[in-house]
Amino acid sequence: MIIDGKKLAEEIKESLKEEVARLGKKLRLAVIQVGANLVSEKFLEQKKKFGGAVGVDVRVYQLPEDISTNTLRKKLAEAVHIKQNSGVIVQLPLPKQIQTQYILDGIVPEKDPDMLSSKSIGLFATGRSSAMPPVVGAVKYIFEKYNIDVKGKNVLVVGAGRLVGKPLALWLLQQDCALVALNKHTSDLAPFTLNADIIISGAGAPGLIQPDMVKSGVVVIDAGTSESAPNGHLVGDCDPRVAEKSSFFTPVLGGVGPLVVAKLFQNIVVLARKQSKL
Amino acid sequence: MIIDGKKLAEEIKESLKEEVARLGKKLRLAVIQVGANLVSEKFLEQKKKFGGAVGVDVRVYQLPEDISTNTLRKKLAEAVHIKQNSGVIVQLPLPKQIQTQYILDGIVPEKDPDMLSSKSIGLFATGRSSAMPPVVGAVKYIFEKYNIDVKGKNVLVVGAGRLVGKPLALWLLQQDCALVALNKHTSDLAPFTLNADIIISGAGAPGLIQPDMVKSGVVVIDAGTSESAPNGHLVGDCDPRVAEKSSFFTPVLGGVGPLVVAKLFQNIVVLARKQSKL
Repeated sequence: MIIDGKKLAEEIKESLKEEVARLGKKLRLAVIQVGANLVSEKFLEQKKKFGGAVGVDVRVYQLPEDISTNTLRKKLAEAVHIKQNSGVIVQLPLPKQIQTQYILDGIVPEKDPDMLSSKSIGLFATGRSSAMPPVVGAVKYIFEKYNIDVKGKNVLVVGAGRLVGKPLALWLLQQDCALVALNKHTSDLAPFTLNADIIISGAGAPGLIQPDMVKSGVVVIDAGTSESAPNGHLVGDCDPRVAEKSSFFTPVLGGVGPLVVAKLFQNIVVLARKQSKL
Repeated sequence: MIIDGKKLAEEIKESLKEEVARLGKKLRLAVIQVGANLVSEKFLEQKKKFGGAVGVDVRVYQLPEDISTNTLRKKLAEAVHIKQNSGVIVQLPLPKQIQTQYILDGIVPEKDPDMLSSKSIGLFATGRSSAMPPVVGAVKYIFEKYNIDVKGKNVLVVGAGRLVGKPLALWLLQQDCALVALNKHTSDLAPFTLNADIIISGAGAPGLIQPDMVKSGVVVIDAGTSESAPNGHLVGDCDPRVAEKSSFFTPVLGGVGPLVVAKLFQNIVVLARKQSKL
């Protein structure tokens, strides 16, 4: 079974649109964009489109590639301070000269729909946040929709990146499953992938997971986006033939991707509702 | 090789004593104690003794077993607010009626040597804290002392508790190893323990790990303290014969235990030094 993430994202879109209308206040997502690259451009386009559809304004703050960490932190603080910005996100990756986590920590949890600041991560890790990282929200939505229960399962997370592997590992540490978390220092993946009941991959390494490395009937969520070299297309971590061996397969494009965007906007609504209560 | 944690803790004690003297200001650890139980009494005694030896006062705030979450949070806030308290910890476990994480979140990171608040955990998870959770400090100290490198290794953490399993898993997620994290919902541990190069156990389940469940030459850190039923002695997760099959074994008593206490006091010094710089 191959999951149509676009369709799932559409469902969320419809209900979110109603929720935004019911809220009765203007919502705006501020996006801090430094320089540009293909993957982030693509996701930014999706965000603008989705925001437009559900009634959340998206304002992009475009900043130069050679900006310093201090200047960027100041610009970010300004965007966070503006009342009309309900949420603020930083489009990643940032250029090499920037201390990324220091920048992300400039976003207060109340305005952090991406949940990448240390404070948001801490609240999430201790079960005290009202929102959850968008990629976690996306995977949880898929699991609930298709009755995939992680309880007692061997769940493998491939990749330890900030956007996919880390938040998923943090989430799974709080679930009733065995968590196996691999990073680029694991030389041989096969002994781990072959034992996994569920594989969630966010390595950003095309073809990393081949069909002979997984057991028949495995559940696979491919969340590792990268540009394939010759033509610049976006591809996932799994060889396409992995889908044939899986009982359940979610490709990165048209799979997890659109859902992650939907969950980002759902977080904006969750945070806005919480702000209204304060 | 069986590690003598008491001896290692003595080494830290000597250097800490000098550091405290050099700091030239009075340090005090406030301990919030609600009711009492054997394991926490034992650790509290060790803390008082260690504090006395290095020159850090330990003040215990004894509170009644039937206290409410709100009253406890208020009492904690008072202790945090007192300037003379350089660090504040809450002796765990708390009685059932208490929302433990909400209480722990009343400690600001600057005064949180146990690093159990959401903020401290977030800073640690993103690599932005100057201190590290005491159990992580203890394990890291042992690994560095005996040249045990986790790089590329299969490292297994058994147990997902707040004091041992969770902080160690958070740490290992940031290291160059494969992390396998199990909790009480894993019905069969053996397939995981047999593949592990390094096992760190913090389940609090006596005899959970038997010698036929580990490979020869494994590195084992037993950090799972519990009371054994008939005589009330404190015991670890590993059957004592596991030590014979290990290349390296750290028992819970006289092993990790004393080092965790030493690392708690080291954190108080680290935090105090940071406070002086502010």
